[in-house]
Amino acid sequence: MTRLSWSADAVSVGGVCEGGFTVERNGLVVPGVLWYPAEPAGPRPLVLLGHGGSGHKRNERMVMLGRMFAADSGWCAAAIDGPVHGERGPVTDTSHPAYSQMWQRPEVVQDMIDDWKATLDALSALEQVDSARVGYWGVSMGTMFGLPYVASDARVRAAVLGKAGMIGSSVRRSGIDTYFKAFAPKVTIPVLFVMQWDDERFDRQGQLELFDQLGAQDKRLHAYPGQHADNGPESFEVQAAFLKRYLERTEA
Amino acid sequence: MTRLSWSADAVSVGGVCEGGFTVERNGLVVPGVLWYPAEPAGPRPLVLLGHGGSGHKRNERMVMLGRMFAADSGWCAAAIDGPVHGERGPVTDTSHPAYSQMWQRPEVVQDMIDDWKATLDALSALEQVDSARVGYWGVSMGTMFGLPYVASDARVRAAVLGKAGMIGSSVRRSGIDTYFKAFAPKVTIPVLFVMQWDDERFDRQGQLELFDQLGAQDKRLHAYPGQHADNGPESFEVQAAFLKRYLERTEA
Repeated sequence: MTRLSWSADAVSVGGVCEGGFTVERNGLVVPGVLWYPAEPAGPRPLVLLGHGGSGHKRNERMVMLGRMFAADSGWCAAAIDGPVHGERGPVTDTSHPAYSQMWQRPEVVQDMIDDWKATLDALSALEQVDSARVGYWGVSMGTMFGLPYVASDARVRAAVLGKAGMIGSSVRRSGIDTYFKAFAPKVTIPVLFVMQWDDERFDRQGQLELFDQLGAQDKRLHAYPGQHADNGPESFEVQAAFLKRYLERTEA
Repeated sequence: MTRLSWSADAVSVGGVCEGGFTVERNGLVVPGVLWYPAEPAGPRPLVLLGHGGSGHKRNERMVMLGRMFAADSGWCAAAIDGPVHGERGPVTDTSHPAYSQMWQRPEVVQDMIDDWKATLDALSALEQVDSARVGYWGVSMGTMFGLPYVASDARVRAAVLGKAGMIGSSVRRSGIDTYFKAFAPKVTIPVLFVMQWDDERFDRQGQLELFDQLGAQDKRLHAYPGQHADNGPESFEVQAAFLKRYLERTEA
């Protein structure tokens, strides 16, 4: 049984509300944040946002994307803290020992899958959320957890993934290739996989290999020059358009 | 000196005019077609469309794109017949001996560069064309000729290229890798390079290599599953949005 509690600190800025919440799952507390248009307009698509390593549910990227989906598309968007990140731990840099330790825990990926499922259970009950039109956006650590998640929750209809792969220093540290090998073929929803051509953490060849192994018939790879933290000039706009294309269809 | 002559067969359908023309260059006649909005609206961007092997200036793809740019964006678009294609020769299938012979001719690429330059010279004089906002769209043979062209004509401001590369059966037949090696580093305008992940004519690795060698700092690769003739579900829409992003800026 999951339970959603709202924090007292909801704010509304520029037509977008941002409210903190927690979801309780088997006595464990998952802290999250929801962005939604201030103007009520009935149930709308929801994008689940997975932050990167060293980030948290309210970091700059999450806030930018959450506000973009709410303001530009009139959608809802939600982020939760990853394990040992944000309100759930000490990691603000992936060089922190707790980051590597996190990946040693055999249940870490399954736990995050269950956190997302519980979060979506809870958010689906909200009047502003159309649970038939749910997407996922998460790159880097947002894909390390998010790819297994979207492979495991049929409610997610389309996903932006990427900046991750089968080879590289971040793979040696995390052992994520084992999970990718198991879960990538099970990702059968439409995917936009984004990569940086000169990524120093996930090697080019290993990212191409991960894209190749995705089970989806309907997938596309977008590659831009630059390193792991860089982004193409129009990349977020194009990613939003991709989700819009798939979540604004009415097939429910 | 170039000279533009209009054919008598201009037609206007659904708000888009389509007019045949010829450009004379050193006694050589280059046959072309121009699409433009029927409603006059001053100078507008122009997209040069390079057709694929076995195609011609008015094949289904060219007409679709020409009408799309004119109707949806209010732009102009122009296509010309490639050597030994359309009104310039017998090739309607790349298995025709004249197709392989074409690639043996040492001047074939430079001639097509000069054909495009002469065409743009002539079209730039038209009142509906803004010669400061010119883009190029061409994949497969449209890149085999178009990549050297856009590397050689500074008037082209952004290009959609792709479905071509350094390795594969189409490379062995044409020897195009020699041209790509020479011209790719000279392509410094924004590029969207599109490829099919399972292309049977241009190998995956050789397409990635060609993208890698493009001199542009601002470039992106879009890959979709499928063979050479396939296309991603939203690929043309995304390619049009790319050109729009770069050609509707007013920096002239």
